[in-house]
Amino acid sequence: MSDTNPTLPVHTPGRIMSGEMAEQPAVLRRILEEGAPHIREVAERIAARNPRFVLLSARGTSDNAALYAKYLIEVLLGKPAGLSSMSTTTAYGAKPDLTDVLVITVSQSGGSPDLVASTWAAREAGAITLAVTNNPDSPLAEVSEFHIDVLAGPEKALPATKTYTAELLSLYLFVEGLRGGDGNHAKILPELAEQILARQSEVKALAARYRFADRLVLTSRGYGYPTAREAALKLMETSYIPALAFSGADLLHGPLAMVDNVSPVIAIVTEGKGGQALQPVLDRLRGRGADLVVIGNRESVEAASAGFALPTEGVAEEVQPILEILPLQMLAYEVTIARGQDPDVPRALAKVTETH
Amino acid sequence: MSDTNPTLPVHTPGRIMSGEMAEQPAVLRRILEEGAPHIREVAERIAARNPRFVLLSARGTSDNAALYAKYLIEVLLGKPAGLSSMSTTTAYGAKPDLTDVLVITVSQSGGSPDLVASTWAAREAGAITLAVTNNPDSPLAEVSEFHIDVLAGPEKALPATKTYTAELLSLYLFVEGLRGGDGNHAKILPELAEQILARQSEVKALAARYRFADRLVLTSRGYGYPTAREAALKLMETSYIPALAFSGADLLHGPLAMVDNVSPVIAIVTEGKGGQALQPVLDRLRGRGADLVVIGNRESVEAASAGFALPTEGVAEEVQPILEILPLQMLAYEVTIARGQDPDVPRALAKVTETH
Repeated sequence: MSDTNPTLPVHTPGRIMSGEMAEQPAVLRRILEEGAPHIREVAERIAARNPRFVLLSARGTSDNAALYAKYLIEVLLGKPAGLSSMSTTTAYGAKPDLTDVLVITVSQSGGSPDLVASTWAAREAGAITLAVTNNPDSPLAEVSEFHIDVLAGPEKALPATKTYTAELLSLYLFVEGLRGGDGNHAKILPELAEQILARQSEVKALAARYRFADRLVLTSRGYGYPTAREAALKLMETSYIPALAFSGADLLHGPLAMVDNVSPVIAIVTEGKGGQALQPVLDRLRGRGADLVVIGNRESVEAASAGFALPTEGVAEEVQPILEILPLQMLAYEVTIARGQDPDVPRALAKVTETH
Repeated sequence: MSDTNPTLPVHTPGRIMSGEMAEQPAVLRRILEEGAPHIREVAERIAARNPRFVLLSARGTSDNAALYAKYLIEVLLGKPAGLSSMSTTTAYGAKPDLTDVLVITVSQSGGSPDLVASTWAAREAGAITLAVTNNPDSPLAEVSEFHIDVLAGPEKALPATKTYTAELLSLYLFVEGLRGGDGNHAKILPELAEQILARQSEVKALAARYRFADRLVLTSRGYGYPTAREAALKLMETSYIPALAFSGADLLHGPLAMVDNVSPVIAIVTEGKGGQALQPVLDRLRGRGADLVVIGNRESVEAASAGFALPTEGVAEEVQPILEILPLQMLAYEVTIARGQDPDVPRALAKVTETH
């Protein structure tokens, strides 16, 4: 490779991922300024069809964005929603009646054959189909009745960062559009994202603390739970540290036994109802002597062993996940660099995953 | 405690859990002989109401049983189904319209306040509610319109074993009843379960091999995926080894980077479409030099580094999960004993988890 050839530029590990993380405020701005009108139009056309039930299909990072959308749909829209088990269609050939069902497929590349096949099957079964991708020319966009482009620009690092926050914001604006909301809570996000991304030295200090951890537990409740899952995925795929995400309630049903005073627990404390519901879990963790790292408001960080304080004043609970993930992306990046690995190209992975 | 008092019997670590595991063939028989008529009656009454969607609510081990039911409902019944995010009701007060929706809540104790509250809220919102519990006198059975008793008898060890397989079989018979099937595929299970549970020495040898693992990855596709998740939970709550479960497709989207030649991967290869869909994942894992442990038919075990061969001939794919989990429960037990811990009482856990 070029690293051994002095006449070619040397690849700095993590340069691509860190560049893409840094683009996030601009991507969020682009969605708000250029993408929002189209998202609203798609939402209005789908709202007119009055779907009764929403199913979400995705893999990997996009599956965590889909889970965020599930919370939005249940809480803001009051519609029942579920995440699909794609293999029931692609492996078992299940043919449910999907009349009145909105099927949302989320995929950065829009290229996974199983997503394309299951979306096509859903459309044939009567569903209203919406693809949310970063590629309007993708096969997934092609087979879906509706498409939202998340406008993140090409993503080259293997760990998805800017496409994740772009998916979150696009899905938020879509759900706002479905219920006739104005999406104004999102306006503040690009500026706050910039402020958070500028605090790299704080994350470096956290990374120094967790560099040698041989496992991490992540937990949250409500809107923050998708953040916990996405942070776990990011940490695993870059640093290779096993990272286990549990909803706070599930953590108490078994996995708590695994937590001891050498297992750091990262808690995402969303300001609002999710964070309140997490408090008894935090008390139990403190009672077990866990090293507790809080991503949340300043007060909850100060009551923990360490953490990263987020701006929460004036930030609606339902948009906080778009900010919460940023310090955790940075943490995955910094821990990986500190361990001497290259976050741009984790071993064994390909950007478009050909699952069938 | 009694251990320090020579006049009282000394507690043998794991005696309660191993006793309850051993009861499983008898529990399966009891459900088939005594429980089946009532399950069929409940199913017929619910089928007459013709629900369009199914939502499943549960925590911990019962959540894995609920996931199994989701596959059954989608594949055998062709109805869309989803797992609920309980916090949207209990923390956020979401009030979706649940007319035509069947809400199934699965809980060993029937006592978790959040399950009771979310089931009650679902009933108020128009849902047909069914509780599947091991306690007909529980608050959850009380608030639900319909109830199925899984007839497992009192479960005293903290790790749930016999209530899990009892939930699986009860849910299978219920879904069979919904579609007017005869449930005959289940008749063979008690006898096969007995044969599997008798092979303790094989599991002890596996446990010796994985006793010192500092993490485990579990994977499967289709019907076997709930088994992978339940096995991970069982291993974590008894042995405290971090155990990460991924669907085969999701494993390729990121976490594969974490797998190297010192990370054992346990693959549940269900005989049938799920196992076929897993083959490309197994090839990738072998290509990465992973230590691959297969729970599946003899042929797939022989192609792996180690494993436990299951009887699959004449066993319908949809009931295999009721057998697949048995060697994995035994593995969690044996690894825990080998590590000098007591699987009956994992640190930090309580039998009825009071999540709100």
